[in-house]
Amino acid sequence: MSHIDEWAPRAFDGDPRALGRLISIVENGGDGVREIAAAFAARAGRAQVVGLTGSPGVGKSTTTTALVSAYRAQGRRVAVLAVDPSSPFSGGAILGDRVRMQEHATDPDVYIRSMSSRGHLGGLSATTPQAVRVLEGAGFDVILIETVGVGQAEVDIAGLADTTLVLLAPGMGDGIQAVKAGILEVADVFVINKADRDGADATYRDIRSMMALVTREPHEWRQPIVKTVAHRVEGIDELVEAIDKHHTWLGEHGELARRRLARARAEVTAIVLGTLASRYSVSEGLSAKVADGELDPYAAADEVLAAS
Amino acid sequence: MSHIDEWAPRAFDGDPRALGRLISIVENGGDGVREIAAAFAARAGRAQVVGLTGSPGVGKSTTTTALVSAYRAQGRRVAVLAVDPSSPFSGGAILGDRVRMQEHATDPDVYIRSMSSRGHLGGLSATTPQAVRVLEGAGFDVILIETVGVGQAEVDIAGLADTTLVLLAPGMGDGIQAVKAGILEVADVFVINKADRDGADATYRDIRSMMALVTREPHEWRQPIVKTVAHRVEGIDELVEAIDKHHTWLGEHGELARRRLARARAEVTAIVLGTLASRYSVSEGLSAKVADGELDPYAAADEVLAAS
Repeated sequence: MSHIDEWAPRAFDGDPRALGRLISIVENGGDGVREIAAAFAARAGRAQVVGLTGSPGVGKSTTTTALVSAYRAQGRRVAVLAVDPSSPFSGGAILGDRVRMQEHATDPDVYIRSMSSRGHLGGLSATTPQAVRVLEGAGFDVILIETVGVGQAEVDIAGLADTTLVLLAPGMGDGIQAVKAGILEVADVFVINKADRDGADATYRDIRSMMALVTREPHEWRQPIVKTVAHRVEGIDELVEAIDKHHTWLGEHGELARRRLARARAEVTAIVLGTLASRYSVSEGLSAKVADGELDPYAAADEVLAAS
Repeated sequence: MSHIDEWAPRAFDGDPRALGRLISIVENGGDGVREIAAAFAARAGRAQVVGLTGSPGVGKSTTTTALVSAYRAQGRRVAVLAVDPSSPFSGGAILGDRVRMQEHATDPDVYIRSMSSRGHLGGLSATTPQAVRVLEGAGFDVILIETVGVGQAEVDIAGLADTTLVLLAPGMGDGIQAVKAGILEVADVFVINKADRDGADATYRDIRSMMALVTREPHEWRQPIVKTVAHRVEGIDELVEAIDKHHTWLGEHGELARRRLARARAEVTAIVLGTLASRYSVSEGLSAKVADGELDPYAAADEVLAAS
């Protein structure tokens, strides 16, 4: 796979074609992934990684676009990785959303990429860290990872990002459904987008009441709630400020190092499990015995493990 | 774990306390899981398993409640497993939703249970099949599995159910976001709930246009689109009919056997991987080397695999 020797240096310089090529290799889980990891290892941990998650329709894409503009105004180079955990397609998976990003299409200091994680063992946790490594290697100051936020994907994003934004919007289902208890654990910053709509205050109160249920020590991070109207670029500077404040807090409390250590461990674990999974296979005959109730699945698993 | 010998026969008779106890053991991943699997193996594959998925706010819980009533009117015994992939809590996780199910609380032929899958390796795919086995063992005619439908959870549900319902509602984000390409793969029946609202026809057209992009052979299943207003119990009989029609189609085309074989294989694979994961651990020191860029994650994984 010597072409990686050729593409990696170009990617270090931020060449979008080289970045695209390498991330495609990561996405497809090809042989080159290992070589890419080796080439990019020494350039790890330089970017500020921001996760952005929320239900469909809360305005993730619009908010991402507005954040990109705000970072560019500060002179920071920004990469966006839009991960779609439910799409079987790669590259153009969420093209509909990406069309809105056209205003940044000609800016060489902005790189935008859609990526599918479906079908990979471990989903997001297996491929996204490698793509982040490639973007870090290319010297981006900020890497924004955007994903639909329900279930494991949002937990994975939180494990990968330094700062995780959870977006909510007024009127997206009732409070109990929109502000699930699990969200409190993953959010570093809450964003109420479409805050000009009816119900924004109710959403604000829902978050507050949920936060009130958790006891925090004085030194612990208390999630701010930022109101935005992303399509009118309102509240975006305040959001950037909240993100940076959290990043500073992470550094001052040793949390940044702790999170990056946990991330490295999760990354290695995902590779170990992927490798192991490829070594074991469950035969048709054994599956049929389980389906027919002749064998329970644990006894079948014992057979698989003993046979390898 | 001899108490399973005691609870299993009671569960076979549908005793809700025994069911609750056994499903809690499954949910917590305790030692008894293996024993439960052995006790229930021979009673596998008797129920019709229906998955129900959709974004927050589309009316999953209301639709589930209406379906339960419709099945009861036909004299069928129904179990509901409400799986919350984002909640760290068990049992009472989505109590808010369950409150609406109170009308069935005193019916001995209805069993309703919330379950968290978070934190388990493999999420839904690891614990839900075992819970379904317990409910099948208890002789329920229909098992409804309800989950928030984005990402891996919805793919897992589709892998577990005979028939998967994808619920949409008008005005939940624009068409591109709501009707993601991935949904076409998991849906056996589309349900447009809240069909009395503005935009129901637009949602219908969105689904139709997406379906038109896929070429189907004459013998292949063509997903019906059922319009419902679940809170007024409108369209529910049509939905039950669509589900049963699909189930008949599955049987006639050998698909039911094929799906149950795939399900058994996935179940065994999840157990194999869970067992393997518990045998390998990534040390703090190795994680630190990866975080600091001294070692790439693949090289670190090699060390872990070689050491065990």
